[in-house]
Amino acid sequence: MDNQIFADLDTSPRILLGPGPSMVSPRVLRSMTTPLLGHLDPEFLKVMDEEQALLRLVFQTRNELTLTVPGTGSAGMEAALSNFIEPGDPVLIAVMGFFGERLAEMARRYGAQVDRVEVAWGQKFDPAEIEQALKAKKYKLLVMVHAETSTGALQTHVPEIAAAAHRAGALVVLDTVTSLGGLPVEIDRWDVDIAYSAAQKSLSCPPGLAPITVSARAREVLQNRKTPVANWYLDLTGLEKYWGPARAYHHTAPISTHFAMREGLRIVLEEGLEARFARHRAHAEILWEGLEALDLPPLIPLDYRLPTLTTPQLSPSIDDITVRRRLLDEYNIEIAGGFGPLKGKVWRIGLMGFSSRRENVVLLLSALRDLLQSP
Amino acid sequence: MDNQIFADLDTSPRILLGPGPSMVSPRVLRSMTTPLLGHLDPEFLKVMDEEQALLRLVFQTRNELTLTVPGTGSAGMEAALSNFIEPGDPVLIAVMGFFGERLAEMARRYGAQVDRVEVAWGQKFDPAEIEQALKAKKYKLLVMVHAETSTGALQTHVPEIAAAAHRAGALVVLDTVTSLGGLPVEIDRWDVDIAYSAAQKSLSCPPGLAPITVSARAREVLQNRKTPVANWYLDLTGLEKYWGPARAYHHTAPISTHFAMREGLRIVLEEGLEARFARHRAHAEILWEGLEALDLPPLIPLDYRLPTLTTPQLSPSIDDITVRRRLLDEYNIEIAGGFGPLKGKVWRIGLMGFSSRRENVVLLLSALRDLLQSP
Repeated sequence: MDNQIFADLDTSPRILLGPGPSMVSPRVLRSMTTPLLGHLDPEFLKVMDEEQALLRLVFQTRNELTLTVPGTGSAGMEAALSNFIEPGDPVLIAVMGFFGERLAEMARRYGAQVDRVEVAWGQKFDPAEIEQALKAKKYKLLVMVHAETSTGALQTHVPEIAAAAHRAGALVVLDTVTSLGGLPVEIDRWDVDIAYSAAQKSLSCPPGLAPITVSARAREVLQNRKTPVANWYLDLTGLEKYWGPARAYHHTAPISTHFAMREGLRIVLEEGLEARFARHRAHAEILWEGLEALDLPPLIPLDYRLPTLTTPQLSPSIDDITVRRRLLDEYNIEIAGGFGPLKGKVWRIGLMGFSSRRENVVLLLSALRDLLQSP
Repeated sequence: MDNQIFADLDTSPRILLGPGPSMVSPRVLRSMTTPLLGHLDPEFLKVMDEEQALLRLVFQTRNELTLTVPGTGSAGMEAALSNFIEPGDPVLIAVMGFFGERLAEMARRYGAQVDRVEVAWGQKFDPAEIEQALKAKKYKLLVMVHAETSTGALQTHVPEIAAAAHRAGALVVLDTVTSLGGLPVEIDRWDVDIAYSAAQKSLSCPPGLAPITVSARAREVLQNRKTPVANWYLDLTGLEKYWGPARAYHHTAPISTHFAMREGLRIVLEEGLEARFARHRAHAEILWEGLEALDLPPLIPLDYRLPTLTTPQLSPSIDDITVRRRLLDEYNIEIAGGFGPLKGKVWRIGLMGFSSRRENVVLLLSALRDLLQSP
């Protein structure tokens, strides 16, 4: 057996401009050096309460059932589905990219009868397409992605789609992984029933907690389940007893990650949501202009292009992997490639949270200019 | 809507002597201030490789499928069950306390036909009892707890029980949440098929990752499943593609928690397993002697008493809740109460990892002496 214990951790100072994780403020990193509290210590319960209050502000909701589940963004996705699906439930998934596919896969695993409406990767839905599908059959859930991380497309018209779903008797599940904290997400005004996100994108916290919020209407559906939630760890009926006044032990919370989440949310609200959205937008616009000048035009038309994640199209002469490797090795910049039908055809450039900075955009554009001109 | 953003985090310096989380070394806390890497950055993949190699040393195994799942200890438990249970599978759970109950509950939720063998809380199994149950019916899994956190009992004779299970054609699942890193856990020598643990007990890392290891025999069972694992997030077939040479994207790993885990495991192995076990034992013995002197005799007989978690019995004159509150408020010491049938009858005192220190034992005994003599 190998008895080597390895050297001190010694990492490169990466500039994270991929689809997440984004960079984390030194304030948030420092918060994790706080010595631990027990998961039932009154001081820790206060941290949870504050985190919950801050999360409601960020989600723009008064939903009582608002909390973080103890896992990364995919755990948020899984919590949103596993709690509201019972075997045999009909579920409509709107697929416009990779994360729609993942939602369909997860829903199937929990025994849902999954139907899909679909547009090509890089497109978004017209509300009428979804409304038509909702009229053809009665669904328990309509599930859609607000900001598709695989394509850079924003699903606009969420309020209209949610209204159509409610007219058809379905609950609305919204993936806000790549939108929350970077562009408007207004859960109550849009009348979304279940929304989840991730810590490590526009909230700029380290991954490990996934925000979720549940409307009173959806909570009632949860309380009236006939079968227990298969997923014990993410069962919101257990989690809400820990977050609520009962304070019943469920799991040992990831204490240090909660310290980070609280600090990261404080930073979001100190900046202010409107100012934060404007900053994300302004830096994205500089990026877009620079990409056009480099003959790397964004895939997504301006009217539904995400400010948090841009997908420039690569001309066939560009060696995708080599350029990305050189960005990392020579400039310490991480961006990501496309996948699925977009593999080799686009890059994915994130400007989220602490990473959304003018100096990062200017450096990236400069580096790309050098690498594309001297291959 | 409340626009208060809350003050800087300002916590009390707790001395964590409950059943976990335990205290975390400043080295481990500092490791979390490392700026983030992307979850597919070659430098992060190296961190994962090193964490995996260290974990194998701690589990004393050569199992290829050894990794941490992205959640706290209960996620490890859930991964161990959900990956190996298909609907209708007969599963035998050996229940000797609260965590055996939880295992039975989780197994039921994944559709297992659950049978139980049971002893009273505070007892452990004679291998013959389990062997008898294994002979009565063919089971896919035998599931048991090595160190029962609710009672302080150690299940001895794991190798004999594992051999009996294998003779009967069952795989062995072992909960090592409160043992790994604090007392011997020898996965290969004991021939255990699936073992899981938690970061935040005797490994003294912040909660948020759960170590798991899977034998070649169990891995084959996993690969030959007829149905997909319902739990997508904890599906080991997806996780092992990320940890293995394919490096296929699965989820965004909790980067900072992995930095902490690597550093915490380095500390475990720098101390050396034998020295670490001896330290846990030595400090537990000081505690036990002191508790006897205070008329707080440990519930569990010496021959199967855990060194990591002690459950002193309370005489009826002791006001459980008041004493624990005063320990916290006046001394910053956290210990825990009993629950289930042991509620109000025992405390749960953990001496795990960085918390297992002579000064902590002496302070706790002194504080208890003062509080019990001047109520």
